[in-house]
Amino acid sequence: MTNSLDAFYSALSDPTRRAVIERLVRGPAPVSELHAPHDIALPTFLRHLKVLEAAGLVRSEKAGRVRTVHIEALALADAEGWIERQRRIWEARLDRLDALAERLETESPPKEP
Amino acid sequence: MTNSLDAFYSALSDPTRRAVIERLVRGPAPVSELHAPHDIALPTFLRHLKVLEAAGLVRSEKAGRVRTVHIEALALADAEGWIERQRRIWEARLDRLDALAERLETESPPKEP
Repeated sequence: MTNSLDAFYSALSDPTRRAVIERLVRGPAPVSELHAPHDIALPTFLRHLKVLEAAGLVRSEKAGRVRTVHIEALALADAEGWIERQRRIWEARLDRLDALAERLETESPPKEP
Repeated sequence: MTNSLDAFYSALSDPTRRAVIERLVRGPAPVSELHAPHDIALPTFLRHLKVLEAAGLVRSEKAGRVRTVHIEALALADAEGWIERQRRIWEARLDRLDALAERLETESPPKEP
């Protein structure tokens, strides 16, 4: 799992690659359509796709001359899952601190002036 | 925002740095305690902390000789937020496809043999 999280977050640390994900969550797309909005050479763009594919965040298939790219939603869910778990642990800690603060207030109410 | 997401995900792409986050969501900790479970030299570990701090995912403060590190929960929430939004768009698409499939089934029920 450690290695796939390394690859997920490393892949997501680039704006071009995130833009590809943002497009693919709306549905599969051919490489040419994915490349069009980006002002970079095709070989450079293909390297970005390779990074996403190696991380398991997208897959692609070729039919005739057209390569279509799909999102791998489960991998995206794993990448979300780790951060989400950290947030829950953090929130549980805040809740405990809140409860503690409330108990301290009840046990020693502020004195009248 | 693009630049901070770059830094967030790049920082999270390393297992040592994720381990630091996993510890800090349970509460602030001195550098020495954060370093202890990791079998790497202190200067190397401090570089990891610097990456997390530069990304805005942690902050630290020195009191006397002890430097204490804290999580920056809002930055973690931003890193989660981008992935979560992508998942929601993806799920909304699946829901639309489900609804479409259901309508097609209703409109053309399978013929009796």
